[in-house]
Amino acid sequence: MKEVTLSAPTELKNIAPAQQKASLQPLMNIVKSDLDDTNQIILDRMHSDVELIPTLARHLIAAGGKRLRPVLTLGAAKLCGYEGDRAKKLAACVEFIHTATLLHDDVVDESNLRRGNQTANALWGNQASVLVGDFLFSRSFQLMVEDGSLEVLRILSGASAVIAEGEVLQLMNVGDITLTEESYFKVIAAKTAALFTAACEVGAVVADRSKKEIEALGDYGTNLGIAFQLIDDALDYSSEQQSLGKAIGDDFREGKVTLPVLLAIRKATPEETKFWARVIEDNQKDGDLEHALELIEKHGTIEDTFASARKYGALAKEALNTFEDSDVKSALIDAVDFAIERAY
Amino acid sequence: MKEVTLSAPTELKNIAPAQQKASLQPLMNIVKSDLDDTNQIILDRMHSDVELIPTLARHLIAAGGKRLRPVLTLGAAKLCGYEGDRAKKLAACVEFIHTATLLHDDVVDESNLRRGNQTANALWGNQASVLVGDFLFSRSFQLMVEDGSLEVLRILSGASAVIAEGEVLQLMNVGDITLTEESYFKVIAAKTAALFTAACEVGAVVADRSKKEIEALGDYGTNLGIAFQLIDDALDYSSEQQSLGKAIGDDFREGKVTLPVLLAIRKATPEETKFWARVIEDNQKDGDLEHALELIEKHGTIEDTFASARKYGALAKEALNTFEDSDVKSALIDAVDFAIERAY
Repeated sequence: MKEVTLSAPTELKNIAPAQQKASLQPLMNIVKSDLDDTNQIILDRMHSDVELIPTLARHLIAAGGKRLRPVLTLGAAKLCGYEGDRAKKLAACVEFIHTATLLHDDVVDESNLRRGNQTANALWGNQASVLVGDFLFSRSFQLMVEDGSLEVLRILSGASAVIAEGEVLQLMNVGDITLTEESYFKVIAAKTAALFTAACEVGAVVADRSKKEIEALGDYGTNLGIAFQLIDDALDYSSEQQSLGKAIGDDFREGKVTLPVLLAIRKATPEETKFWARVIEDNQKDGDLEHALELIEKHGTIEDTFASARKYGALAKEALNTFEDSDVKSALIDAVDFAIERAY
Repeated sequence: MKEVTLSAPTELKNIAPAQQKASLQPLMNIVKSDLDDTNQIILDRMHSDVELIPTLARHLIAAGGKRLRPVLTLGAAKLCGYEGDRAKKLAACVEFIHTATLLHDDVVDESNLRRGNQTANALWGNQASVLVGDFLFSRSFQLMVEDGSLEVLRILSGASAVIAEGEVLQLMNVGDITLTEESYFKVIAAKTAALFTAACEVGAVVADRSKKEIEALGDYGTNLGIAFQLIDDALDYSSEQQSLGKAIGDDFREGKVTLPVLLAIRKATPEETKFWARVIEDNQKDGDLEHALELIEKHGTIEDTFASARKYGALAKEALNTFEDSDVKSALIDAVDFAIERAY
């Protein structure tokens, strides 16, 4: 859990509106004890006598990351006043599904690096990544069955199907410079936001809250998830990221049309359109990423993407109006700002 | 459903003990009407607005195959006197899980052909195969949730985890000429028999039968599944298959040590051991498969593998002793002989 950044770096604050430093820390403090238990459940339940499974799972799960999705389940349960143990186990289910999708994503993207570490498929091969992903996915459903809520099973099996649909849609959209904003948002709502939605809903379900409250937390998760992915997509073209020594341009190299590019294509001169058609649809050569970054900067589409993320962030916060003010509610609101201001 | 072979070809009958022609037809006749409904559920529920999903799923599902696993669910339910609709939907769940594992297997094995047809990954790429497999797997759990039985969810989520474990174990065993019979059987029990077990148990669960009867049908499925895989592994080295124009030697080329090879290694002369070490652990050249077939024939290990399959087949039949004699029971017994005498 070492990656929690207390504030956004200076460069990004110039893009984000002037405000207090956003942090995930208040939410992390509130769920800390539960999250420790969730982490223990994750370690215990990724066990298998087939050694490669825990070895590979540990590589990805123990590598850290923010555990944002299980934290949302725990935070949503807290917001609803839930005090029992079920949320901890279900938070582990959410993390297992997330990990399974990461393992399969890296195979799909043919990625060799994730957060600067070698990916599981680079270390152990695509085959192991596919199969260990399948194991974690199955294990997640086994844990849900142990919990015994058909409503939770409905939410998370539904989210899993939607995630797979979103990933397939993204695959079909690769190399398409005519991609519409509507199609782009459809993809990110499915591949990313659906699990945020489900993670939050599950927290309300274990607390046995009303349909209205379950939906409100679901809306919070959906809009937070969209904002989160928009920032991810912006950071992949961020010169600030590059100056911090982080890899950028993954989406570009894969021919994925994300919002910064989609908006730059919309504003392109005829000559720029030719450039985008070649690099996205056809082939790339040295210097293309640099030229793409220039065009993105010229048209200010990173700023546009951040503005869009802030819009969804505002919707996420608004969704919490259903709930009375509390420390947990404030912490969930801070988490939205954190997701937008984060630099990784 | 065109592939149902009414009898084993002449060549194989020389290996199988003298007996009446075995056939899957009696079981197919008994479940025909239910299976038609299951096929309709499969077609309806593999739908997605993301077109590539039904296109790719249809390629694999509509390509036929015997639908052996859903047929077992329907047959087991019939044996237990079940007359309702639930078994049809759950049989579709079983087939979706099977299809998802096939899609992921073909990525894992880097196969380009399955039953003489191009595999989905050869046609649409590994990425699509991984993701559509994930979709079908999720859809299967959605259907189980609709059915509403936590016991069914427990059985099929457990089977899915075991299948993934078996596949990983198999991957770890590739190229290992010291593989033990125990390890080999552990792999096939997990990767193949677990879903046969679950498919049969589910049929008894919907009929609300006793634990003893659920277990008896589970034992039937387990032993049938092991016999089925043993025959699969034998046929991959069968000169009769080759003379019928079917591809053989897939396992050999992948360095998978299956029973015919494992037993040939055990009986090998020092010189033969050197051959196996080179071709399984290291590299293969032209003529190696032919030499492997000679050694397998010399040591009679195809016959040994068939004998082992017949032993498991006998255990499968014995497991049905719990049930009174009936047409369904006879048909399930015939299905065991069919699995052993089949030529594909």
